[in-house]
Amino acid sequence: MKIIEHETLGNPADVLELKQVQDRTPGAGEARVKVLATPIHPANLLQISGQYAAAPDLPAIPGGEGVGTVVELGAGVEHLQVGQNVLLAGVGGTWRDEIVAPAAGFIPAPPGDVEQLSMLAVNPMTAHLMLADFADLEPGDWIIQSAANSAVGEMVIQLAAQKGINTVNIVRREDLILPLKSLGATVALVDGPDLAERVQAATGGAEIKLAMDCVGGDTFERLVETLGYGGSIVVYGTLSGKFPELNMRALIANDVRPRGFWLQQWYTTASQEQKQAAMGALVPLIASGAIKTRIDSRFPLEEIGDAVNRAAASGRDGKVLLVPNAV
Amino acid sequence: MKIIEHETLGNPADVLELKQVQDRTPGAGEARVKVLATPIHPANLLQISGQYAAAPDLPAIPGGEGVGTVVELGAGVEHLQVGQNVLLAGVGGTWRDEIVAPAAGFIPAPPGDVEQLSMLAVNPMTAHLMLADFADLEPGDWIIQSAANSAVGEMVIQLAAQKGINTVNIVRREDLILPLKSLGATVALVDGPDLAERVQAATGGAEIKLAMDCVGGDTFERLVETLGYGGSIVVYGTLSGKFPELNMRALIANDVRPRGFWLQQWYTTASQEQKQAAMGALVPLIASGAIKTRIDSRFPLEEIGDAVNRAAASGRDGKVLLVPNAV
Repeated sequence: MKIIEHETLGNPADVLELKQVQDRTPGAGEARVKVLATPIHPANLLQISGQYAAAPDLPAIPGGEGVGTVVELGAGVEHLQVGQNVLLAGVGGTWRDEIVAPAAGFIPAPPGDVEQLSMLAVNPMTAHLMLADFADLEPGDWIIQSAANSAVGEMVIQLAAQKGINTVNIVRREDLILPLKSLGATVALVDGPDLAERVQAATGGAEIKLAMDCVGGDTFERLVETLGYGGSIVVYGTLSGKFPELNMRALIANDVRPRGFWLQQWYTTASQEQKQAAMGALVPLIASGAIKTRIDSRFPLEEIGDAVNRAAASGRDGKVLLVPNAV
Repeated sequence: MKIIEHETLGNPADVLELKQVQDRTPGAGEARVKVLATPIHPANLLQISGQYAAAPDLPAIPGGEGVGTVVELGAGVEHLQVGQNVLLAGVGGTWRDEIVAPAAGFIPAPPGDVEQLSMLAVNPMTAHLMLADFADLEPGDWIIQSAANSAVGEMVIQLAAQKGINTVNIVRREDLILPLKSLGATVALVDGPDLAERVQAATGGAEIKLAMDCVGGDTFERLVETLGYGGSIVVYGTLSGKFPELNMRALIANDVRPRGFWLQQWYTTASQEQKQAAMGALVPLIASGAIKTRIDSRFPLEEIGDAVNRAAASGRDGKVLLVPNAV
């Protein structure tokens, strides 16, 4: 079988190699799965180049999620069937054409869009958990987010719209506004001075209950000013590379509550029930096409260099997928 | 009766005036109370000079807490008796020798130290609520605080010691350490670089569950570094006048949770049950002398200028009390 591997940290297009390794028959309790689609996320690229919080053990096979088809089962595997599609969750590196691993790492997938399901566990899950775990949101409530045109941001818009929650979406450029409106954004505004006043005007003075920020710096500071009493601001990245000043007065007088969210930590600590509940909420929406991640392009494993370069390019329009086995 | 009043905002010693006003007999549902002791807090001075968040309606009588003796009751007052000592809570300005107000504003006080009870509702209550409401603390747990030699800080030390909670106390000068140790401080350290390492060394690597900060700036930033995973940092003031940089990485990777605390807001929004529970926890400890606020000096109303100057002086050693009626 074929794997994508790197033995050193560095520029992904330089250090990643396609390798042929020995096929393996699944042992007791294992399954053999052909990988159909697995995405390239910015976090993958950061990890390969050594810029991510957690460095991989080398040599490493990147990739954290995907969808595959079961092609062979070892003894004693009850919850899977040959020919069935499965989500690749907790089976380690997914950038390969085949995986043999303990069957518990494969979750039966419903019928539906294989490519969309292959991108469920990172960005849609992040959006779902940030909406669910940091504020008690009812239909008609308002939230605000920065980087609203990111993969997570677009998921937040669609998930919130499904729940009847109004979104204020902050972007860097005017031309990013229209596409977000067509996704279901209630309000979309360009970041900059007097943001709180513009949000007030655009929402009719609505109370903002939750902010989500992956930018930091000035953007975080401006989002804090838009929050209502007791509102939370959840940070899940620092794209600007700048830490904000913390307005202690907003914490004391307006009970603003900053929090952090780290998906990897959630997967490590959430109970099986919590994971099933989150999956149960997301999978039907994604399998049915009710919420979607934009796809920029698809590459076979043989073109991994082009694939990671495309994933790092500023002009791309959606996710880059690896499709090791044509469907 | 005599009142302390100011008709303009300004330097307290300049704008405060002692005035003689008409005595009044309590109407139905009211009580007349002679004030025995009422403290001068920094927040009072800020409010008189116009530097506090909430400006008073002028003319204003300052003072937010104290103890008095019931001297006369209007018709229909059931829960009070003439001769009984009461806490002055929610009766408005307390810097006066007598108050006539609805009886609901007077809470029967237990026998015990009148002066200590007169200072219960602000600093001890702040310390109690910050310890109770932001972390689930068990005996043996560790907390950390800045400005540990402040009135709130000393209350935190004593309340925590009563509960078997270990305290790391951060101060500005070496000579402040010994007095805090004698109050029950587990560890006391001078603020400065490498604070997190020194806390680790002094606590044997204990997990710090809660930080309390009223300084801001660098001090807040250093306290964040001392917290364990999921620890909260509660801010209740900004003595340095500087907002800190918010380490977003600490929020994301270490789940640090900044919060604000504002006592005035708590009194406005807490339920009657919450207030009774908090009073019920504090009053016995204070009435019995188990926890104490240091008293610097006592002044009659006639010496209000000297009293507020003393309360603003850097060399004072504890609270300044107004004692309108000798006990």
